Amino acid sequence: MIAGMAAEARRAALQLARLSTEQRRAGLLRAEEALRGARDAILAANAADVARAEAAGLSAAMIDRLRMDEARIAGMAAGVATVATLADPVGQVIDTAVRPNGLELSRIRVPIGVIGIIYESRPNVTADAAALCVMAGNAAILRGGSEATQSNAAIHRAFCEGLSRAGIPTTAVQLVETTDRAAVGAMLAAHGAIDLVVPRGGKGLVARVQAEARVPVLAHLDGINHIFVHASADKDMATRIVVNAKMRRTGVCGAMETLLIDAAYPDPAALVQALAEAGCAVRGDARVCAIAAVTPADEADWDTEYLDAICSAAIVDGLDGALAHIGRHSSGHTDAIVAADEAIANRFLAEVDSAIVLWNASTQFADGGEFGLGAEIGIATGRLHARGPVALEGLTTYKWVGRGAGQVRS
Amino acid sequence: MIAGMAAEARRAALQLARLSTEQRRAGLLRAEEALRGARDAILAANAADVARAEAAGLSAAMIDRLRMDEARIAGMAAGVATVATLADPVGQVIDTAVRPNGLELSRIRVPIGVIGIIYESRPNVTADAAALCVMAGNAAILRGGSEATQSNAAIHRAFCEGLSRAGIPTTAVQLVETTDRAAVGAMLAAHGAIDLVVPRGGKGLVARVQAEARVPVLAHLDGINHIFVHASADKDMATRIVVNAKMRRTGVCGAMETLLIDAAYPDPAALVQALAEAGCAVRGDARVCAIAAVTPADEADWDTEYLDAICSAAIVDGLDGALAHIGRHSSGHTDAIVAADEAIANRFLAEVDSAIVLWNASTQFADGGEFGLGAEIGIATGRLHARGPVALEGLTTYKWVGRGAGQVRS
Repeated sequence: MIAGMAAEARRAALQLARLSTEQRRAGLLRAEEALRGARDAILAANAADVARAEAAGLSAAMIDRLRMDEARIAGMAAGVATVATLADPVGQVIDTAVRPNGLELSRIRVPIGVIGIIYESRPNVTADAAALCVMAGNAAILRGGSEATQSNAAIHRAFCEGLSRAGIPTTAVQLVETTDRAAVGAMLAAHGAIDLVVPRGGKGLVARVQAEARVPVLAHLDGINHIFVHASADKDMATRIVVNAKMRRTGVCGAMETLLIDAAYPDPAALVQALAEAGCAVRGDARVCAIAAVTPADEADWDTEYLDAICSAAIVDGLDGALAHIGRHSSGHTDAIVAADEAIANRFLAEVDSAIVLWNASTQFADGGEFGLGAEIGIATGRLHARGPVALEGLTTYKWVGRGAGQVRS
Repeated sequence: MIAGMAAEARRAALQLARLSTEQRRAGLLRAEEALRGARDAILAANAADVARAEAAGLSAAMIDRLRMDEARIAGMAAGVATVATLADPVGQVIDTAVRPNGLELSRIRVPIGVIGIIYESRPNVTADAAALCVMAGNAAILRGGSEATQSNAAIHRAFCEGLSRAGIPTTAVQLVETTDRAAVGAMLAAHGAIDLVVPRGGKGLVARVQAEARVPVLAHLDGINHIFVHASADKDMATRIVVNAKMRRTGVCGAMETLLIDAAYPDPAALVQALAEAGCAVRGDARVCAIAAVTPADEADWDTEYLDAICSAAIVDGLDGALAHIGRHSSGHTDAIVAADEAIANRFLAEVDSAIVLWNASTQFADGGEFGLGAEIGIATGRLHARGPVALEGLTTYKWVGRGAGQVRS
């Protein structure tokens, strides 16, 4: 079944790639209207999914992720409209040069082609991912979670109705039946037929996709993020950033998980104290335990993404101590330094090998919206193709276009 | 063994990433000198490899690829020096923006990290690939062909001696013992330890790497390249380009493999005749066979990369006929149109979904040198990360660098 869908998707992708910016925008705006118009149908489908999930005894957290209400549907529709306002990367000239023989060569951004999205319980991903794929000129094959089957189908139906009203083939966005258990495996094996797979969900899903995939994967793994407070840091700024980075929202991938305090920082106990007062359980190394009444950290703590009101904390010897700790334990997502000393900050920014490195700012800014990308398909923790928050540009590639006057090669 | 080498490589990569352009250039220039200085040792090692290959009854073509002489060594050394003259992508600012909250965000090009190169008989790849990796700030793990064991070892030894003289750790370029049969499999499985694998060799090698790899692969597959001669094409230009594209060198991946002639082109027989006179065996579809004395093509011909003085030819109905044929049969490497009609050419350039699309120029320009990249690690036929000729920039990725003034997220 996936082979047939992928073939349809390829045909749709070739058509999408030829549409103007305005045509793709119109498709998204019609999809927004259709989603708003389908509100009652989506709510009914979602109620059925939620009832089934409750009967099956799913956790309250899972049911909350699954549940849609009027506000969530409106937010989802507005998100689709927002994508339509983003700068269009397709057709953008990356660079151009005229060779000595007169051949003009340009690199032009083009869609990737066929993108598979494999996701879990949140039904809004159906519309979010479809909008980003279509706006970047790609066809999407969506495979949502089995608990959201009816919600996803209702959202997908509305989205495609909108596309159709704008003259865009509905094969541009196809939804895989969740009753097809082999579908995920087939998507991951579809080398050459699906150009990129984006898993959106928990670690289990992402790990399975990475382990099995024969197709390129744009994946988001752990965000074990550090903040290093250097001796030169302004004390108020350091406290504000550290507390915000950990406690603003503890469940996001940009949350700080480990605090590193320079041994020469004037008041390390105050930092730990501020976290504790904000409700954070701190697990300290021996040097932190010596200055504050906190739980001792064990080795596993330095490699743990808590996603909770917990953080590990260590006292390190200057920038080199911080770099050594981060080199061993960072997951390469987002790491930050708080420092007044610009030379120290520049070394940190240069030497920490993470997708996002920040100076004097909270790690919670690790987010496509905050980065001005408008929306994101995910935050990539791999090193190839795209890194950090990925939006429309990351869903494109390029081709070389050469214009000659009859040049042959000697 | 690969795990240990990859760990060494990671350490070296972190050091390389911190070197200035001038330090990496100096490493390459010392390597060039060392390669020239090691000429006799390389020749002796190569003579031993060649003698072993002859005793084993390897083909003359394989032995030619394996054999080094003074000119090939000088060429290899000069190639290393050329890479040192290329523009350095590392540290380049891709884009930068100041967010409304004052946070300045830039994307900065950084090395990928640890790159594995898996190659076959040509020993010069040892130096070529090492130079490109090091110049882009990456550590390389090289695995050459077993028939070139001694040659590769001698070249590797000289290259590292050069690096060492420039103060660069020799773990920046490691060579895998070819007696370690499991090494290729271990490299391909080294997810997270090797960031990218580049196979350089025949289809068998590339196919094995693509089938087995758990790490990202930058691969070069077929170049089934088309030239479409449109009705509006200048006759002399069309003949010159078609003959050059097929016959200049028939064994290169940029060679034309299929000629498509517009049914409205005034003199299709002359094009076929010119190819035949240049020594090319033409296999035509029914319409070509009706106007020229050529062998009839069978279905497999349209999907064959001959890499020889053979080409398939078909008469198609206008641009749409050409696009349909190319859509079915192109391998997405390089396709060209010869036309005087600019609107037709622009449609071809926009709608053909290949890494390189050319107007009024020979497909034989598909080459990093001709594209002004100075050197290439390969021509990528995949769609992700980098496409077409890949040189230094394709061996980098980027990171986001944010500079704030204490911003926290509300």
